[in-house]
Amino acid sequence: MKMDRRTLLGAASASAAAGVLGGAGSAAGAAPKDQIRIGVEEAFSTQEHMKAMRDFVDAHPEVTRFDYKLWRMITSNLKADTPRRLLDLADMRLKEMDEYGVTMHVLSLTSPGVQMLDPDVAVGVAQSANDELAEVIARHPTRFGGLATIAPQEPEKAASEIERAKTKLKLNGVVINSHTNNEYLDNQKFWPILEAAEAMDMPIYIHPRTPSDQMRAPFDDYNMGSAFWGYGMETSTHFVRLMMSGAFDRFPKLTTVLGHMGEAVHFWIWRLDYMSAPGVARGETPIKLLPSEYLRRNLRITTSGQENPAALRYSIDVLGAWNVMWAIDYPYQEMPSAVRFMDNAPLTQEERDAVYWKNAARTFNIDL
Amino acid sequence: MKMDRRTLLGAASASAAAGVLGGAGSAAGAAPKDQIRIGVEEAFSTQEHMKAMRDFVDAHPEVTRFDYKLWRMITSNLKADTPRRLLDLADMRLKEMDEYGVTMHVLSLTSPGVQMLDPDVAVGVAQSANDELAEVIARHPTRFGGLATIAPQEPEKAASEIERAKTKLKLNGVVINSHTNNEYLDNQKFWPILEAAEAMDMPIYIHPRTPSDQMRAPFDDYNMGSAFWGYGMETSTHFVRLMMSGAFDRFPKLTTVLGHMGEAVHFWIWRLDYMSAPGVARGETPIKLLPSEYLRRNLRITTSGQENPAALRYSIDVLGAWNVMWAIDYPYQEMPSAVRFMDNAPLTQEERDAVYWKNAARTFNIDL
Repeated sequence: MKMDRRTLLGAASASAAAGVLGGAGSAAGAAPKDQIRIGVEEAFSTQEHMKAMRDFVDAHPEVTRFDYKLWRMITSNLKADTPRRLLDLADMRLKEMDEYGVTMHVLSLTSPGVQMLDPDVAVGVAQSANDELAEVIARHPTRFGGLATIAPQEPEKAASEIERAKTKLKLNGVVINSHTNNEYLDNQKFWPILEAAEAMDMPIYIHPRTPSDQMRAPFDDYNMGSAFWGYGMETSTHFVRLMMSGAFDRFPKLTTVLGHMGEAVHFWIWRLDYMSAPGVARGETPIKLLPSEYLRRNLRITTSGQENPAALRYSIDVLGAWNVMWAIDYPYQEMPSAVRFMDNAPLTQEERDAVYWKNAARTFNIDL
Repeated sequence: MKMDRRTLLGAASASAAAGVLGGAGSAAGAAPKDQIRIGVEEAFSTQEHMKAMRDFVDAHPEVTRFDYKLWRMITSNLKADTPRRLLDLADMRLKEMDEYGVTMHVLSLTSPGVQMLDPDVAVGVAQSANDELAEVIARHPTRFGGLATIAPQEPEKAASEIERAKTKLKLNGVVINSHTNNEYLDNQKFWPILEAAEAMDMPIYIHPRTPSDQMRAPFDDYNMGSAFWGYGMETSTHFVRLMMSGAFDRFPKLTTVLGHMGEAVHFWIWRLDYMSAPGVARGETPIKLLPSEYLRRNLRITTSGQENPAALRYSIDVLGAWNVMWAIDYPYQEMPSAVRFMDNAPLTQEERDAVYWKNAARTFNIDL
């Protein structure tokens, strides 16, 4: 696997996709010159995080699963394009943001955050990553926001970190990279995290990672445990488990966020409702509302990594324009392509403003 | 779990879904009085099939996975609504088809067909189910088509059965209910089946079943191994494995069919292309084309169980109207609801005819 995804922009797939998927730009006018743009799934890393991840994969040379392979590659040469762009915050990144008119990045520690690390290490790396993040935001308050990293391995400490991130560090939400040691957030051991997130008005961005050990086998072949396919199956299934556990009844004001055009959960919205009617699936589970009601009340989705105008249109039609946010997925996807996609998507300007920045400002309590 | 899904039509979820998902009917005129309607995922069973399934689940009382529970329920009382409607072919079914203007059902032995049975039993039950199916079609040639059941447990015999089903029984395609003993069609042991299907111009309908043992654990809770969620994750992942194995390069004229609005595979079309560019996923796999090219060349999708006008619109926009077919999913979903959905979907009449019957006639070689 080649890590320099910049080259992808010129590759056959990206240009073919842009061509066949509706020729964005033909259906509506471009965005105005003063368009505000907030990307909400923008990755960074720290030297300490890189070192902890390298120590971790070095300690487990026998493991062949995708996330280990990926992190061996990332940490093998910090001067390669992807790690360099992850570690750079205010230099190359701001320059590129200026070049393409990106107002703000809402930053998050790149997946899987600290969730593969031993608990003690994880708690420490999370705290210092959040401190570094707060410092960068303080230096560039109009250019960066940030989601707090937590170590779900230690739920009570994670809950405390959410409170610290909100009250002391003024961060804008929380990122959790799907499963933690193969456990999902529907497990009530994690509910102190959900409780803190709801109490602090900190949305939880459920970001992908390689499928859990319980389901990863069919994804181990053909590189399918990656962003190519398995990330979405893992993360969408995680969200549906959370919904079916009754977590959104217990924490009705909790906001969750799914990237990659909602990880396709809402493409199933009609079937989820139909099959959850009393007597079929719902009879065995305690949820109070229809899945579609949770999807509109407790979920926001983002466009990261799915620059598909038809999927955007579908999402707005089904969830409402106020539930969809723009994201680039930098540095794994490219700023100019993500900007071109949203500038030219077939939306009204009111919808474009909602998706480009107003929903992000409201959801993540961002003052511009 | 209650098996009488007729009651679902009156339930909160179905009506809420119909309401919130765009109010089908507002955007375009209704279908004309003489509209032709061919449903292509319509289930049946035979007395022999029911008995074989009951013997099988009776022999494994300790297994708690969803498909075993489901089949204990179905076979516990053959006079209950669902088994009665599965076993009835030309009586209640034709009456209801007449009532709602359904021209034809393309029948398939209900999931998982014979794929849970011991190989010898499976081969025999498949053959006699195909014989019974051919007889029903011979009695009502303008009202029924049929997909052949095969036992993938015995690939060579399955390939022969495909040839017999085409040449002797004049059936219209093949149904395979996802994994067989936890193995997927990308495994080259199954490729005699793909070879026969291509040679005989028999499309393979990859129908859902409960996720394979390798991935089912996260779906075991909250009834998620069912049509509520797990069926789609299993079946879409199966298709992607097949695509990534190079099967569509080896058998370029093979047609596969995915129900439930394509099991959402094509909602990922942009990302599949992007992530399969040389150097990322594609570098490790032998496929020659972009995923989007296989999705348009080797795949047809159907609307079964997803009566969502926005998802239909998305599908047509992305795959083309000639790749989408109507299906009811009878008796698990209801004829009047499926007809109402498609009669009023916001399509041109040309698109409506394509989805309602022309694509089915072309794909499955049906002479009306």
